Amino acid sequence: MSDYVHPYRDTEFVLGELVELERFCAEAGLSDVNGELVSAILAEAGRLGSEVLAPLNAVGDTQGARLGERGVEETPGFSGAYGQFVESGWPSLTAAEAWGGQNLPNVVGTAVNEIWHSANMAFALCPMLTQGAIEALAHHGSAELQAAWLPKLVSGEWTGTMNLTEPDAGSDLAAIKARAVPNGDHYLISGQKIFITWGDHQMTDNVVHLVLARLPDAPAGVKGISLFVVPKFLLDAQGRPGARNDAQCVSLEHKLGIHGSPTCVMSFGEKEGAVGYLVGEPHKGLACMFTMMNHARQSVGLQGLSISERAYQQARQYARERLQGTRKDGSRFPIIEFPDVRRMLLQMKASIEAMRALALVAAAEVDRTAHAPDPAAAARHQGRVDLLTPIVKGWLTELAQEVTSLGVQIHGGMGFIEETGAARHYRDARILTIYEGTTGIQALDLVGRKTLLNRGELLGGLLDEIGETVARLESAGPFAAQARALGEALAAGREARRLLLEGAEADAALAGSVSVNFLMLFGYLCGGWLMARSALRAQALLETGGDRAFLEAKLVTARFYCEQLLPRTQALLAAIRAGSGSIMALSDEQF
Amino acid sequence: MSDYVHPYRDTEFVLGELVELERFCAEAGLSDVNGELVSAILAEAGRLGSEVLAPLNAVGDTQGARLGERGVEETPGFSGAYGQFVESGWPSLTAAEAWGGQNLPNVVGTAVNEIWHSANMAFALCPMLTQGAIEALAHHGSAELQAAWLPKLVSGEWTGTMNLTEPDAGSDLAAIKARAVPNGDHYLISGQKIFITWGDHQMTDNVVHLVLARLPDAPAGVKGISLFVVPKFLLDAQGRPGARNDAQCVSLEHKLGIHGSPTCVMSFGEKEGAVGYLVGEPHKGLACMFTMMNHARQSVGLQGLSISERAYQQARQYARERLQGTRKDGSRFPIIEFPDVRRMLLQMKASIEAMRALALVAAAEVDRTAHAPDPAAAARHQGRVDLLTPIVKGWLTELAQEVTSLGVQIHGGMGFIEETGAARHYRDARILTIYEGTTGIQALDLVGRKTLLNRGELLGGLLDEIGETVARLESAGPFAAQARALGEALAAGREARRLLLEGAEADAALAGSVSVNFLMLFGYLCGGWLMARSALRAQALLETGGDRAFLEAKLVTARFYCEQLLPRTQALLAAIRAGSGSIMALSDEQF
Repeated sequence: MSDYVHPYRDTEFVLGELVELERFCAEAGLSDVNGELVSAILAEAGRLGSEVLAPLNAVGDTQGARLGERGVEETPGFSGAYGQFVESGWPSLTAAEAWGGQNLPNVVGTAVNEIWHSANMAFALCPMLTQGAIEALAHHGSAELQAAWLPKLVSGEWTGTMNLTEPDAGSDLAAIKARAVPNGDHYLISGQKIFITWGDHQMTDNVVHLVLARLPDAPAGVKGISLFVVPKFLLDAQGRPGARNDAQCVSLEHKLGIHGSPTCVMSFGEKEGAVGYLVGEPHKGLACMFTMMNHARQSVGLQGLSISERAYQQARQYARERLQGTRKDGSRFPIIEFPDVRRMLLQMKASIEAMRALALVAAAEVDRTAHAPDPAAAARHQGRVDLLTPIVKGWLTELAQEVTSLGVQIHGGMGFIEETGAARHYRDARILTIYEGTTGIQALDLVGRKTLLNRGELLGGLLDEIGETVARLESAGPFAAQARALGEALAAGREARRLLLEGAEADAALAGSVSVNFLMLFGYLCGGWLMARSALRAQALLETGGDRAFLEAKLVTARFYCEQLLPRTQALLAAIRAGSGSIMALSDEQF
Repeated sequence: MSDYVHPYRDTEFVLGELVELERFCAEAGLSDVNGELVSAILAEAGRLGSEVLAPLNAVGDTQGARLGERGVEETPGFSGAYGQFVESGWPSLTAAEAWGGQNLPNVVGTAVNEIWHSANMAFALCPMLTQGAIEALAHHGSAELQAAWLPKLVSGEWTGTMNLTEPDAGSDLAAIKARAVPNGDHYLISGQKIFITWGDHQMTDNVVHLVLARLPDAPAGVKGISLFVVPKFLLDAQGRPGARNDAQCVSLEHKLGIHGSPTCVMSFGEKEGAVGYLVGEPHKGLACMFTMMNHARQSVGLQGLSISERAYQQARQYARERLQGTRKDGSRFPIIEFPDVRRMLLQMKASIEAMRALALVAAAEVDRTAHAPDPAAAARHQGRVDLLTPIVKGWLTELAQEVTSLGVQIHGGMGFIEETGAARHYRDARILTIYEGTTGIQALDLVGRKTLLNRGELLGGLLDEIGETVARLESAGPFAAQARALGEALAAGREARRLLLEGAEADAALAGSVSVNFLMLFGYLCGGWLMARSALRAQALLETGGDRAFLEAKLVTARFYCEQLLPRTQALLAAIRAGSGSIMALSDEQF
């Protein structure tokens, strides 16, 4: 048996009961999408994940990508797996039919992507980045660019990358130095980019880089950045990869984890200049990049869920098999019988279920935006996407640190031994709060653009909706304690919002001082809200039959979440209430 | 400049203001020990740590110990460093004069040990384990055994190990299978031990193993375990290492971190049987082992502090140097100016200062026990040692996970690159909540032997003492907010104690269900207590002059601790209040 099996029952529960996928699809006119189809898709993806991708995860860790004569040589086995992945049509799942896509809802793609990232996160980063490139071109590329690049990216025959970061320009994109000089129908790009995920490999016959650079007349700062397509191989007259472009991976990083994912230093234009094509308007590259990044940010949040699920499955298996207690009669029992091991497993499980609920509910808002009946509804759903994206990215990935660490802890001494694999998930997970914008960057986005800029309107709408769930819990008999817990967390959320809105103007350091605690508070609150809604649905389904063991377990994880995770909102509120005073009090030398 | 410098100012503050070392030494008749001497010792140790041990830390990580023809070959450079370490007399600092020791207080040894573990934790594990062996022999060995082994262990010419764990006996020592058969004046030991830290190396001409094994007539379970000295080389008539004993390292573990510390699989008696000598009485090995383990547990807690300090210094340096923000005029500024980076640094700093205070205050209780004027006072101080040991071990090491993770986070993308070194501290730290008894084991010790067994008396005494600090805060003008915060945390501690004492009898799963949250609650509370005492002292010293920059910073970290860390006690209390219900509700299959 594989060491990873997709927990399809929980995914179907979230899609069915929280997302209400069938009703949405019917209303959106996606009449061919229904629960049965989605289950078949998940089962098929689960098979490829378990049988093909999951076994390559350890291989990727111990035989990571290397830089060879031909460029980057990926982990042995990855190329064959990628071939199967493309052949089965997985890259095109959610893309538009115009480019050969299958036009399935984003939320279904997200549920499927959970599988790839659980099975092999390092591998799955490649199609994930390609997805971002597709989004950018589909939204901002000219018809010509789209025709040239999209079909092969959608089919997965080519892969895509995002080239933002430079040695002196990480979170601070204003400092980007890469240059683009007009040269006939194209531009010549030069400069160095770092931390380029899957910047090169041998799995496909082209790699399509999306690169941020400055035009000669560009204003300083972020308003002078433009986006370019810079392929590894230029296309010939038939649109096939031809001449090698002046874009090379010059070195690979030696990382803590995800060794199977090559992290490249890319050099553009070392010789004659790398040929590139402008995407969208000059100097508007940041907007294009945000299109890629918003999708990528939800995807990285999803990775937090995926790696947590993988770590959980491994820890659960170990806890069931590892005999370590001795009964009075001398017989031994597995450690899953110890209350503290059960506590750790439940914390993992409850966290994961809350993460999955939030990831899929947020992903569905993207679909609700796209299929909204009117502009007002579209704006409403887009507002929810905007609001939830930093929470999904920030909170899920922070939680993944704790969940994968618990996975190590449950293994005891064996958890520290690399061959066990628990530490691998822990190492891999560590990148998630960093790339695609650190937790600090997500938190600034949440308190700034997503809250202060609209005077807390988006957050107010969410809080009101959570209030409705509290009311429903209160009127349902068995949920009195959970109603109280969620009600208190909701009050903490309201108070945090008030403190931010009322204090930010007078104190320029306030938003940045409270931002991460603010994000985490709303993460726990959103998780509690969706776990509460899950409990209400589980209770209703239990009364009409249904999968008893699963539904009863859902009631337990929801209760555990309210007992052990939701109260953290109070500690976070206390920290927010303290404001910026002590944070800004020390001189740099006093640290 | 070295990348590690001992923060002597804070250590001296804790020793002077919280431990009141000079007064203690005067009362205990240690008239030659005073603040000046201790400062000189710390300065000397700091120099060896910075200049010799710290630079070898990265070497140990990348060129870990290897198994060669002669046995384990330690990291290049370690042997020379160990030679300097022995030559300067560091191993004998706190040992009794009878064995060549310098008889300095345990708390001074602890302050010095912080330096070794910060500089090079993998290296420092070797003398740390030797210390445990010395304790066991000094307390339980016969005069003959002591004379044969102690002088060279105390001088550091030989090193010691602890051999407890077997493949099927980790936390569960009842399952130990290693055998010891009487054979004239000694025993023949056979069996396999795993996870043996520094089980072999070439730095000294002998290695002295302390091994748990069963005599032929041993009762089952933990009451049938005896402790033996099993040297690598038997001693000749002159007491010098002679014939090779039948005790070998047969393989090394491939670990997540501390690569410089060889983790051995030891095989005893593969051929004729390993010669061993009984320590203490037959079947009483567990008591001897606890003597070693109690010291080792405080030492591992101390490692949590040390690695956190190292990670903090590295992150602080990076935050000061890394330019990442761009001002409106185009100039750049270092990331330490960002409020969220300051928050992370302050969280590291405040955690570290609380950890240091608790580690040294707990270590001083060992001295107060040894030098108590009467048996009642000795019992009182021993009770405090017993109570604080699992908290020091459990809480400091759990906090170290968070602190070292923040160290990675502050580095952004560079934190995930191994060459940076931030990830090394994060990897190294991960063992700390596992070895010498997992956090779960510490927590069971705290709720069981240390609380339920004495009906909460030890905890009651501590809570009353914290209450006195709250009263002092209340009567001091500037500390109203901190008085409230500590008072609320104190109330949470009292309530947690009450819930445990009143609930444990009726619910067998309660203690194990709440234990880790209980330990963490008391950890944060003790940290808050000592930070509050630090603030009171800092305020008093400020009024009479003193190092203004340091004392004002101490007031800020104490305030930050109360604002951001102490409120976690409320979330932990909520989890404790929930009891065992949801934790015990699922069947094993429902996980």
